[in-house]
Amino acid sequence: MDEFALIREYFGPLSATGDGVVLGIGDDAAILSPRSGCDLVVTSDTLIRGRHFPDDCAPYDVGWKALAVNLSDLAAMGARPRWYTLALSIDVAAPDWLGAFVAGLRAVGDPCGIRLVGGDTTRGSLSITITAFGEVDAGTALRRDGARAGDIICVTGTLGDAALALQELANNSRPDPGGDALQQRLARPLPRIAAGAALRGLAHAAIDLSDGLCGDLMHVLRASGVGARIDLDSLPMSAAFESRVPTGQRHRLQACGGDDYELCLCLPPQRMAEAAGAVDVGLTPVGVITDTGRLELQDATGAPVALEMTAYRHFS
Amino acid sequence: MDEFALIREYFGPLSATGDGVVLGIGDDAAILSPRSGCDLVVTSDTLIRGRHFPDDCAPYDVGWKALAVNLSDLAAMGARPRWYTLALSIDVAAPDWLGAFVAGLRAVGDPCGIRLVGGDTTRGSLSITITAFGEVDAGTALRRDGARAGDIICVTGTLGDAALALQELANNSRPDPGGDALQQRLARPLPRIAAGAALRGLAHAAIDLSDGLCGDLMHVLRASGVGARIDLDSLPMSAAFESRVPTGQRHRLQACGGDDYELCLCLPPQRMAEAAGAVDVGLTPVGVITDTGRLELQDATGAPVALEMTAYRHFS
Repeated sequence: MDEFALIREYFGPLSATGDGVVLGIGDDAAILSPRSGCDLVVTSDTLIRGRHFPDDCAPYDVGWKALAVNLSDLAAMGARPRWYTLALSIDVAAPDWLGAFVAGLRAVGDPCGIRLVGGDTTRGSLSITITAFGEVDAGTALRRDGARAGDIICVTGTLGDAALALQELANNSRPDPGGDALQQRLARPLPRIAAGAALRGLAHAAIDLSDGLCGDLMHVLRASGVGARIDLDSLPMSAAFESRVPTGQRHRLQACGGDDYELCLCLPPQRMAEAAGAVDVGLTPVGVITDTGRLELQDATGAPVALEMTAYRHFS
Repeated sequence: MDEFALIREYFGPLSATGDGVVLGIGDDAAILSPRSGCDLVVTSDTLIRGRHFPDDCAPYDVGWKALAVNLSDLAAMGARPRWYTLALSIDVAAPDWLGAFVAGLRAVGDPCGIRLVGGDTTRGSLSITITAFGEVDAGTALRRDGARAGDIICVTGTLGDAALALQELANNSRPDPGGDALQQRLARPLPRIAAGAALRGLAHAAIDLSDGLCGDLMHVLRASGVGARIDLDSLPMSAAFESRVPTGQRHRLQACGGDDYELCLCLPPQRMAEAAGAVDVGLTPVGVITDTGRLELQDATGAPVALEMTAYRHFS
């Protein structure tokens, strides 16, 4: 099957006109009709086999994660997902692989209404670059640079699940990967789109947690010119995490482990109640924005905690 | 240098707010302000080392070509270039390489006003995916599906230069690559942005010539439900091509060779004079759209010519 037939068969069904798509796949470019009065929010993320997912990762999970990490960026801006392009490099155009990959894209993409509008398919080692577009009412996108001293730092959902799953995978101590809650969190992250949208207009700043709370929060502190104090004992845990986390590793896994794709938000104290009511995946206060310019970590007694920063860095 | 420092140092200077960019590089996503009353035109192309450019390709030329092929797609839609994202996968973040790569991006991108707004940098074998955004007045983009029987088929510039350059490179019979006109055409294609914009409202259909005239024209014929007759002896040649093309190879190189990145347009006969006057890189009639549904190739005497279709296909 050549490149064009492959695109028609597998990716054509994901692309249809309507809902802002004037012309989808099949021309030199897509033609889109943005909503008037909206800003366009654009993000691009690449996943490479062996680096961002295991060599033997199921194609369904590859498709899911490739789109989910981009949706998570849109969620962090409070944007409504609209469209995406897919640049897929693969060694072999195997129908089974492509079918499962597309099913993974649809499973995470269809519920939030995002539509494939174009891309490029090339032969090469497996890598996926998705560029995703969302929209927000003009001037209302959440950003990293609005945090102010006194803001409450909150996170959605629970932290550490993906990092513990990755550690169990590396130690070969994982339970059945298919049915395990932690492994699911690692393989199929849930972008917090509804939470991001609900907190637009309430939060002063937001970021999604891909590299780990400490590393990602540092981006907010730098962009906003502020500091922060985090109570590590307050970080929310899932039941599976709490029951399996090895002694002495909780703080490191929750504060420095990546891949949770929860949101971290800075909220003025007087908006906390309203914010908590608007989010149905949990919104937990974990610290406060300070004017020190530094990130301080402490436990529930207020004693300082030192953690080695292990957020993932390319080229470091 | 880690990923974030690298992005700041090399790609930061390409991204600035203003001109529709509310927020550029440095957050979870870029925030863009599309022009009201415009359609958004979006294209995405990947270049992989060893497949789309030689292993020893100069980084300046890699940057140039990666952006130019996307600009060529925007040109084929008649769109004004606005913004792009860059997903770069590289083995080593070498300052010299990155500096030259960025210079190549700027050399082709700055004159047409396109701005980098985001992307992703990962470690891996060299590949570049650019997603480029342009704008057109709503409903006026050039497309592949509007060709009608009787339309004059025209091409901008000259054809075959890049294919002959590639052949000379493969045969090791190239002159000094740096100073040679044909090699320049291969390494640094010139996207026909002004021509595409000028022919919006005049042409019925358009496509850019990346895979070769015959292969690309077939996309127009299929999308429009028409046929075409091409006079191969009328295909425009550059002086360098004419002086160096081996005997008997002209038709194949000009009609089937890729990488020229000229535009092919279908124009109603009564708009030909106006169209020719609007394009300053040459606009040559090379055939006519028919109602046969087939692509017929002939020479200046009207005798049929058979050519092996050699347009590049991935996975074929």
